Amino acid sequence: MGTVTLDNITDVVIDSLGKHGEITDRQREIMSSLIRHLHGFCKDVKLQHGEFLEGCEFLKRAGQTCDENRQEFILLGDILGVEVLVDMLTNVVDGTESESTVLGPFYRENPPVLPKGASTILKHYDNEETVYFEGYIRDASGAGLGGVTMDVWEDAPNGIYENLDPDQPEYNLRGRFETDENGHYAFVAVRPVPYPIPDNETAGELLRFMGHHPNRPGHMHFIISKPGFRPLISQIYDADSAWLNEDSVFAVKESLIGKFVPAPEGMDTDLHFTFDFTLKAEAAEKAVAAE
Amino acid sequence: MGTVTLDNITDVVIDSLGKHGEITDRQREIMSSLIRHLHGFCKDVKLQHGEFLEGCEFLKRAGQTCDENRQEFILLGDILGVEVLVDMLTNVVDGTESESTVLGPFYRENPPVLPKGASTILKHYDNEETVYFEGYIRDASGAGLGGVTMDVWEDAPNGIYENLDPDQPEYNLRGRFETDENGHYAFVAVRPVPYPIPDNETAGELLRFMGHHPNRPGHMHFIISKPGFRPLISQIYDADSAWLNEDSVFAVKESLIGKFVPAPEGMDTDLHFTFDFTLKAEAAEKAVAAE
Repeated sequence: MGTVTLDNITDVVIDSLGKHGEITDRQREIMSSLIRHLHGFCKDVKLQHGEFLEGCEFLKRAGQTCDENRQEFILLGDILGVEVLVDMLTNVVDGTESESTVLGPFYRENPPVLPKGASTILKHYDNEETVYFEGYIRDASGAGLGGVTMDVWEDAPNGIYENLDPDQPEYNLRGRFETDENGHYAFVAVRPVPYPIPDNETAGELLRFMGHHPNRPGHMHFIISKPGFRPLISQIYDADSAWLNEDSVFAVKESLIGKFVPAPEGMDTDLHFTFDFTLKAEAAEKAVAAE
Repeated sequence: MGTVTLDNITDVVIDSLGKHGEITDRQREIMSSLIRHLHGFCKDVKLQHGEFLEGCEFLKRAGQTCDENRQEFILLGDILGVEVLVDMLTNVVDGTESESTVLGPFYRENPPVLPKGASTILKHYDNEETVYFEGYIRDASGAGLGGVTMDVWEDAPNGIYENLDPDQPEYNLRGRFETDENGHYAFVAVRPVPYPIPDNETAGELLRFMGHHPNRPGHMHFIISKPGFRPLISQIYDADSAWLNEDSVFAVKESLIGKFVPAPEGMDTDLHFTFDFTLKAEAAEKAVAAE
């Protein structure tokens, strides 16, 4: 190697990996590809030095926006469609199990444990529409799975998650449920409404630079887990929600869309929503990974 | 668009650019390529969600390392060979002018203005080797250019720049010179020695992850400028320096290497270094840009 030119710079940097310290095959794989794509980007757009410096200042501001409650780089990754892509690369589906999607920044560990059919609603809003959610959680053979844990969380009818809203009770619209021996789950909550992701600071700068909006369609979050099965981190989407076809974080998948319908006679809620899930056994996953 | 899959996600994100706000052609060009390369990287290495989160935490730490005196992202860009690449894309050479290279983080505005032939040395070290630097600055026709301003700066024989070293006088080894009517410049300084770039914090993490070292070969920095010509930001390298062939920031170019030789009889310094530069007229540059 030695001196650099426009033609050799990328190879010079990649060839130097591991020359002065041991690195793993994975480190080499990641850095080789990262360098090739970073350089490819610069060359494709003929990135100018002033633009490079602006980019560095943007990243500096993003870093300084981070605190205990805000990881700006995950947000930027969401806006660029990177987190949903990485989720699909991590949780590869073979068509037999429910699809995952991004966890998002609003999950709280240890939500209230509630009996089947209970409500997560701790505060009422004029515009709320109550919903009876129910369905079955099955394995790939179609057998219902008992004892499955299901954490659910969503924004309130004002578009804000309780942990960001001093006017909501702690753990409003959050709960942990369990399926019965047939794999059936049920709970009462509200119809989730669209809301904007944080669009101040650098996340807002990036959205504007891309000519984007910050809004997400109405969705309910889930983490579904049972020992022996791959945990399913996912969301289900309201088929009639605004922004369904232009989610600001690109997390909507066809298989995760469901329909809110009027509750049938005898049901206490305004609406009814049914959705079934299929979990992937961990043995199956390991077999795929070993291929 | 609407729902995403592994196959369509990149196009879905790119197609959404400018859908909710006006963006310039340049913004679209930059973001399209950035998204394509970011996604390409994730797909190539099948980036896992845990690795994505580690990357986000790394960038957060990098942002929080930045302060008035340290722009960690430029340093990371240097370690990845990005700044030198961007410099080559910005200052395209056609073979008639001297090559540029990275400015680096140690330049100070308004160095002491010194007469031709004066010394920048304000403190002496046991291991120092004094040097008489001289040469001609010319235009593309070969005519010497009078009245050219030349800022020079370098590390001290202890490997530290004066602004990072409380034990050196202010502006030690920095100066601003001017060419005479024949385009001749001359000054006295010391032979620059190799030194490590900052390798604590995230810059050090990245160097170790890449299996790299932090060292740069000995070099003297320059900014050469005259109205009507493209400013030349560059460095000249000591042909006999350690690390010449494995610069940690990949900034060495063949055309920028010169040789320190013993000073001839009658010269007051230990060594002699001659180097000529050719500036590019701005008219020529504009013609290239308009192509």
